[in-house]
Amino acid sequence: MVTADRTLADVSESELLREIFPFFASSAVLSVGPGDDAAVLRTGPVTVATTDSMVRGRDWLDEWSTAGDVATKLLTQNLADIAAMGATSTAILVSLLAEPTTSLAWAVEFARVLGERASAAAVVVAGGDLSSAPPGVLMVSVTALGDLGGRQPVLRSGARPGHAVAVNGTLGRSAAGLALLQGGADPQAAADGIHRSCLAHHLRPGAPLTAGPEAARAGASSMIDLSDGLLRDGHRIAEASGVRLSLSPTGLLDDHAALVPVVGDAAWDCVLAGGEEHSLLATFPDDVPDGWRTIGLVEAGEGVTLDGAVQQPRGWDHFRA
Amino acid sequence: MVTADRTLADVSESELLREIFPFFASSAVLSVGPGDDAAVLRTGPVTVATTDSMVRGRDWLDEWSTAGDVATKLLTQNLADIAAMGATSTAILVSLLAEPTTSLAWAVEFARVLGERASAAAVVVAGGDLSSAPPGVLMVSVTALGDLGGRQPVLRSGARPGHAVAVNGTLGRSAAGLALLQGGADPQAAADGIHRSCLAHHLRPGAPLTAGPEAARAGASSMIDLSDGLLRDGHRIAEASGVRLSLSPTGLLDDHAALVPVVGDAAWDCVLAGGEEHSLLATFPDDVPDGWRTIGLVEAGEGVTLDGAVQQPRGWDHFRA
Repeated sequence: MVTADRTLADVSESELLREIFPFFASSAVLSVGPGDDAAVLRTGPVTVATTDSMVRGRDWLDEWSTAGDVATKLLTQNLADIAAMGATSTAILVSLLAEPTTSLAWAVEFARVLGERASAAAVVVAGGDLSSAPPGVLMVSVTALGDLGGRQPVLRSGARPGHAVAVNGTLGRSAAGLALLQGGADPQAAADGIHRSCLAHHLRPGAPLTAGPEAARAGASSMIDLSDGLLRDGHRIAEASGVRLSLSPTGLLDDHAALVPVVGDAAWDCVLAGGEEHSLLATFPDDVPDGWRTIGLVEAGEGVTLDGAVQQPRGWDHFRA
Repeated sequence: MVTADRTLADVSESELLREIFPFFASSAVLSVGPGDDAAVLRTGPVTVATTDSMVRGRDWLDEWSTAGDVATKLLTQNLADIAAMGATSTAILVSLLAEPTTSLAWAVEFARVLGERASAAAVVVAGGDLSSAPPGVLMVSVTALGDLGGRQPVLRSGARPGHAVAVNGTLGRSAAGLALLQGGADPQAAADGIHRSCLAHHLRPGAPLTAGPEAARAGASSMIDLSDGLLRDGHRIAEASGVRLSLSPTGLLDDHAALVPVVGDAAWDCVLAGGEEHSLLATFPDDVPDGWRTIGLVEAGEGVTLDGAVQQPRGWDHFRA
């Protein structure tokens, strides 16, 4: 029974698992689900796989993020990486490493929302790991597996001069939401639509998951999940492909204008360098499909330019300040 | 360039990745390796998947374990879970969450030994995650994928009365090694063969990986990796199968005798309840294959008995003291 004052130290591992497993729906993909030494699932013959973790104090703060927010963000980070290969996610494994004083309610709510959001994305929770951690540590991790539907994966390295550069999804909203929180905004209440949208996108982002496979079918030559900012992730495509991404401010004006009421002069910074957005950046040799907007052109050269000016790869780097 | 005084904060993420990637051999399994949004690998149509994490201060202490020890133990934990399904591991994803003051040498040595040991087990490092963590936190995680070779998985639930209970690998050595370390033993130097064996098994365990698929081919009716102790893991088979495991002390006398010079009166405790051993426990309807030794019999009933006396499921529980 979950009550507000119980902690993980108050239950055995098997009791906790009994609380959590019902949140994880079954699926035709899954032959053996959580509870044995390993999961058994139908995947392949070609499988896409990725893993991403979040640790409290660095990737989220309990003052701002609920357990459900963390579950949503962690899931989105992983599923967006699968989508960015042009694949559809099918299954995840999930890990929780928590100090024994972690509230049972937090763990149960994390599992509940993770199961709910995974089901909504037609993704099955195949298994995972539950383990105790030293004082102060709370860490969650997901490994996602996906299916290419017989297509070739869309890599970062296929952009060629003449291809269009396009984005699917918002830009800068997560960074603007973070700025609001750092400025003292209440994560639960926001003044108007765009403020609320930015806060929500930072705390529990979605991603254009179906746009990844759609882009692959439309012939996308390269694709990346925008997790570390348009400039940094754009540089990654430029470097892997041996080309230059020439971005046009015109294509970004709407993104910028939307954020001015939220962060003022910092709007361009959010659009160009804001991380954790999980929109998709891709290049297309032919027509840019519906739902994507063109923001530039692939040229011979290197790096990323904006209105012709060379841009440094600003954005999130994990170990540097 | 790795020197003793550099930390992760002194290098960019891409510099660190350039140091690490060369340690990860390629393989025919891997179409797209580390460096894109996700890995692409040939697996399936049925894939076995598991994940396991280790966190400093709980799963290892830097005073006792080198980075290479941690890599070895983490890999063994995961590959043993795959083996316990009767499968052969093919690929792993690896995560490192580290405070920025973590020494660069630790991270590089962890990756070097992980790559070396994975290659030795014919397992490819397909990808992973590298992320910073708050002060004090160092966490490593592996997700392993495996192949059943067209066989059915060996679950915990197939033991039936009359089947033999058998073990492949040592018992109690990891726990005895831990007791030596807790008693002040130097992890780098040990007096004689069995002391050294116990220390080594605790710090950098191996597991009888090929015995898992061999047991499956020999018709094993249930199997589990001994990660939490013979009694606790034996109870898991008993509960999942709805049977009793009746263990005979006779089958365990050699394991016990080997540990008496190391831990004296605690030898039975190590054999019965010692965790992190990563030997395999299985049941067989027919002949017990080579390399396995019979330690008991499956009977109608529940739980685990030793010489007829009911045993509580002692052993490691993650959140309870």
